[in-house]
Amino acid sequence: MIAVDWGTSSFRAYRLDEGGAILARRESPRGIAGVPAGRFPQVLAEEIGDWLGGRRETVVLCGMVGSRQGWVEVPYCECPAGAPEIAACLHPVELEGAAAYIVPGVSGFDTAGVREVMRGEETQVLGALEALPEEAAVCLPGTHSKWVRVRRSQIVGFSTHFTGETFAVLKAHSLLGRMLEDGAPDEAAFLAGLARSAEPEGLLHHLFGVRAKALFGELSGVGSGEYLSGLLIGHELRNALAGVRAAPVFLLGAPGLVARYALALRALGAEPRALDAESAVNGMKLLARARGLAGGARG
Amino acid sequence: MIAVDWGTSSFRAYRLDEGGAILARRESPRGIAGVPAGRFPQVLAEEIGDWLGGRRETVVLCGMVGSRQGWVEVPYCECPAGAPEIAACLHPVELEGAAAYIVPGVSGFDTAGVREVMRGEETQVLGALEALPEEAAVCLPGTHSKWVRVRRSQIVGFSTHFTGETFAVLKAHSLLGRMLEDGAPDEAAFLAGLARSAEPEGLLHHLFGVRAKALFGELSGVGSGEYLSGLLIGHELRNALAGVRAAPVFLLGAPGLVARYALALRALGAEPRALDAESAVNGMKLLARARGLAGGARG
Repeated sequence: MIAVDWGTSSFRAYRLDEGGAILARRESPRGIAGVPAGRFPQVLAEEIGDWLGGRRETVVLCGMVGSRQGWVEVPYCECPAGAPEIAACLHPVELEGAAAYIVPGVSGFDTAGVREVMRGEETQVLGALEALPEEAAVCLPGTHSKWVRVRRSQIVGFSTHFTGETFAVLKAHSLLGRMLEDGAPDEAAFLAGLARSAEPEGLLHHLFGVRAKALFGELSGVGSGEYLSGLLIGHELRNALAGVRAAPVFLLGAPGLVARYALALRALGAEPRALDAESAVNGMKLLARARGLAGGARG
Repeated sequence: MIAVDWGTSSFRAYRLDEGGAILARRESPRGIAGVPAGRFPQVLAEEIGDWLGGRRETVVLCGMVGSRQGWVEVPYCECPAGAPEIAACLHPVELEGAAAYIVPGVSGFDTAGVREVMRGEETQVLGALEALPEEAAVCLPGTHSKWVRVRRSQIVGFSTHFTGETFAVLKAHSLLGRMLEDGAPDEAAFLAGLARSAEPEGLLHHLFGVRAKALFGELSGVGSGEYLSGLLIGHELRNALAGVRAAPVFLLGAPGLVARYALALRALGAEPRALDAESAVNGMKLLARARGLAGGARG
């Protein structure tokens, strides 16, 4: 089978053998944001057409490819959702020489009962289930960080934090961003921002403090960015940890960001544990088997 | 005398008689952001040169005109600061046919002892002192909302919230902004966002919920913006009110924004009271008298 993790700004494809081992992988910057409507089959053929020759191949795709801006909008699968429930919602799409399916996103609720959605992260979490205890909190840091609550191999609920996007827009477009420069990490400034997040008066107040500190020479270029990052991640973590009963906190994502969150979690007294960053391919394998499309649990 | 409130994006000038009554006023969009370095005397002459003829006029200027991006960077006056302390720091500048002074900004600390600064708001608060009890909390809502703690006619400390700028950059540059439209106020959506701010998991989580609500048709165009506004103002108010001992909360600013904050404060069980929105001119009058530059307490 072929597994494709197709997000907003990246394309990753894996060719697997009958036993599920990775034979080949490809990566490109052709995320769905750069694909015109109706051109998804062509772009896919351009990227991995040579893998599709011969017999009818099973292709599973996950991520934003199943959103309104993607190939086709696939309805969300409702929580609680494990591999059987999500596999039952796999959405077939037309692709010459293949049996292709898009993984649905998952919808559920946060701890206050407010509606939440994700697309792509559910597949990463499924792929990491083997490494999780019966009850677990999985954090997927990123533009929209997800905190996923898992119980007995099912996603039972989750909460999204707008941390990465808030950092990016403040850096690019606010008064704070004018002071920020790119450069080597500054752990002391990061931890100072993290510590600040515990103080009273809230995030909107703490944000202005980044400017006041810079005005008084207490922070400069790189330090300001690291302090701002620590401040935002600190607010995310303190709020998210308040709702987490299970320890440790599992981290799933790009190694650099996972290291940053692990440092912050340890500073807050939590116990971080990193999961395999490439778990999405595992998740798609699991879904294909649950649906009877690939080796293993066929039938 | 002439009083000039010269901010980042606006210019307001007032001509006063000996008794302090307003004889004439002018307003223009020539804020300091549009004035090239070194051109401040010329721009001022273009705006109010006809007021400067004849005898040597006293001119007092407040706001960002005293910042690094303004006419000249005037050092901050340290808290606690009342009219005598701020008047002593009035900074003379060269202006033909006039004795001109720039009001210093004020620096102080938030409730956690973290450095804070303001420029312009100190003059507004001074101008409203007569309406305040011995101990008062004054909120000046805006791009950078200020919560000023006043005791016995002195500013003793204050905290800034990045509320307005956060709303603006999220609206203009984030995923959330794509759903927002301008339109008539929607009080129900505003109050729903305000109520949401009391729930667990914090602001960064609540921000993503705006998108999830829109995806499920629970919010659309105008409602999304009002909900986001209520959410952000709710977070500011809940955090700021936690540190306020004195009631009522005094509001000082543009009438539309003051009405929005008053609605929110009442919904949270606080007692809002609006002050004169044009108090800056009063503040400059008070400073000129305290410095012996104008009628009244001369000498």
